[in-house]
Amino acid sequence: MIYFDNASTTAVLPDVAQEMYRGMLEYTGNPSSLHELGFKSEQALNKSREQVARAMGVNAKNLYFTSGGTEANNTAVIGTALAYKSRGMRVITQVTEHPSVTDSFRHLEALGFDVVYLPVDANGHIDIEELSDSVNEKTTLVSVMYVNNETGAMQDIDAVIRAAKAKSPNCKVHCDCVQAFCKHKLPAKADLISVSSHKTGGPKGVGALYIADGARVESLHFGGSQEKGLRPGTENLTGIMGFGLAAQISSQDLEQKAENVLKVKNTLLSLTSLLPDVYLNGALDSPYILNLSFTGVRGEVLLHALEADGIYTATSSACSARLKNKLKIVDLLNEGRGESALRMSFNSQNTPEEAEAVCKAILKHVPILRKFQPR
Amino acid sequence: MIYFDNASTTAVLPDVAQEMYRGMLEYTGNPSSLHELGFKSEQALNKSREQVARAMGVNAKNLYFTSGGTEANNTAVIGTALAYKSRGMRVITQVTEHPSVTDSFRHLEALGFDVVYLPVDANGHIDIEELSDSVNEKTTLVSVMYVNNETGAMQDIDAVIRAAKAKSPNCKVHCDCVQAFCKHKLPAKADLISVSSHKTGGPKGVGALYIADGARVESLHFGGSQEKGLRPGTENLTGIMGFGLAAQISSQDLEQKAENVLKVKNTLLSLTSLLPDVYLNGALDSPYILNLSFTGVRGEVLLHALEADGIYTATSSACSARLKNKLKIVDLLNEGRGESALRMSFNSQNTPEEAEAVCKAILKHVPILRKFQPR
Repeated sequence: MIYFDNASTTAVLPDVAQEMYRGMLEYTGNPSSLHELGFKSEQALNKSREQVARAMGVNAKNLYFTSGGTEANNTAVIGTALAYKSRGMRVITQVTEHPSVTDSFRHLEALGFDVVYLPVDANGHIDIEELSDSVNEKTTLVSVMYVNNETGAMQDIDAVIRAAKAKSPNCKVHCDCVQAFCKHKLPAKADLISVSSHKTGGPKGVGALYIADGARVESLHFGGSQEKGLRPGTENLTGIMGFGLAAQISSQDLEQKAENVLKVKNTLLSLTSLLPDVYLNGALDSPYILNLSFTGVRGEVLLHALEADGIYTATSSACSARLKNKLKIVDLLNEGRGESALRMSFNSQNTPEEAEAVCKAILKHVPILRKFQPR
Repeated sequence: MIYFDNASTTAVLPDVAQEMYRGMLEYTGNPSSLHELGFKSEQALNKSREQVARAMGVNAKNLYFTSGGTEANNTAVIGTALAYKSRGMRVITQVTEHPSVTDSFRHLEALGFDVVYLPVDANGHIDIEELSDSVNEKTTLVSVMYVNNETGAMQDIDAVIRAAKAKSPNCKVHCDCVQAFCKHKLPAKADLISVSSHKTGGPKGVGALYIADGARVESLHFGGSQEKGLRPGTENLTGIMGFGLAAQISSQDLEQKAENVLKVKNTLLSLTSLLPDVYLNGALDSPYILNLSFTGVRGEVLLHALEADGIYTATSSACSARLKNKLKIVDLLNEGRGESALRMSFNSQNTPEEAEAVCKAILKHVPILRKFQPR
């Protein structure tokens, strides 16, 4: 089996699964209970908070656990916009964000906010000058992701922050770092940063939101005082414990891992010269994601052909995979390429040998599929 | 150790912890991925949905997984009120709901809804006639919990449904069944039912919302198409698998378990005759919860005295335990009793022998504490 779908989700690391199993048996109390069983669970929660914060390069007191990246993004975008509504209602994002960000902005639009969706160029990058032109003194929020989940294109977040704050000093900048966490050094100057556990060896259903000192975020949930009231509800203790350990393990040796993964990506990139009509979607920014379009072959058909060889890939993000009639991210970079796009995404365990095997399989399948597919 | 704080949370059942461990190693794909690893995870998700639905006595297609009881309650209350906003803006609840329901109604108030909070009598029951008088043709939602989490008082949900629909046939009735699930037969005629995993041997951080055919609920989350779009975000697969098995195990032999637990409760109830100035808070409805006030002793002090003997109890719900300046539920039944209230809550493993030991400890501590506490 060759698993090149790590941007959709990663397998839970064996050590993480064991830690979660231990946690379930040993930490039985509710972290909010007033007795020692509750206190012990609360301590486990805080240890995990330290682990994730350290992996992110932020202070643990600024970190809030959520039920995943989607909720972290929802809270960051909607919660911030609502918190500063009296100051202004212009909010800015870009077109290739994850659905959890894009649909949060659509919700803000429905609430009467003035939303700007910046376009991207063929590399998947926004134009910082265009961003700057869109920011006015009523702008309270700019949300731009770091590593794109479908193409691996990376935005210059420091430039985004500078441009936003130059025109609107109190504007908050949110950065969806779900695909960057434990792969790239995070842009720690952002006011809000979202991360997820299951992209990096932790369990699904856990995420975190970093909120810088001084940034206000309105809670979207209602109930108890958990997570300082931002995120009520009994904490997903087992999941959070797994997230903490996964973050600690996966945040080691980022540079060495990126170098290894780049070899995997570069091996696959040779397909663009070995086969005609193969196109790279997005800039060669993050080594962890490669998105190629094979003209004349539907991505989903190629995905299933590779699957028969034990190779697992994707056509788009998992969250978008089953949405009907949605424009693919790739089409926003180069219209018409989405239909034939294949996303391959890596982790540090993947090897160049695996990449060579995938190249061979693609070289075998694509010419045959091209013969039988309607152009 | 004697654990009488099962309404706060229960230990994860050993079989459930093992199933979750197995699940983490065997189900590695994202349920939304288009390949077989995704499909396998999706199948696991659907198996769990069947297990929870069967335990609830509802159809699996009407069941939506959430990040817990709090989110299920938030979604039921706010999502339903928003979905039917154009039809009317009167919504009704009662004063002893869990904070995740009460604070959802407070949010609706802030959005301009006309909210009625029905009082309860000394037993913790609402007056069905008073409910009936509050319902008008603009009433779209009535939310009344089944088993109160602090007192064990139970409401007559069938009567609530009849009263609500008699005056407003299209009115939806939501019932928070977090404390009733796997303990009592659920009121399956309700339009919306919330349950949680961690009150019944499953992991924390997972819950579910049942939505009857024909009831509309606006999503409070934004992103992918998971849970038919009601609850976007990659599913907490491990937690959901644990929830499924816990529901299947814990929903067996409800009557026999209730009989056993009643013996535990009745043993503790003898304290009201063995000690002066001990008062029962709420009706003797559910055998799973007993709330007693020991006049002249602060509940938290008694809690810690018992803790020193290895006995774990609570003063209120865990979600409320750390909220400052909040009126206690018990005070809404009998003003002044909240300060000295102790909640003991049971599971089917608890024994009358444990209850006797707790009686002894209370008989030892209370007279001493009464001497030293300011009246």
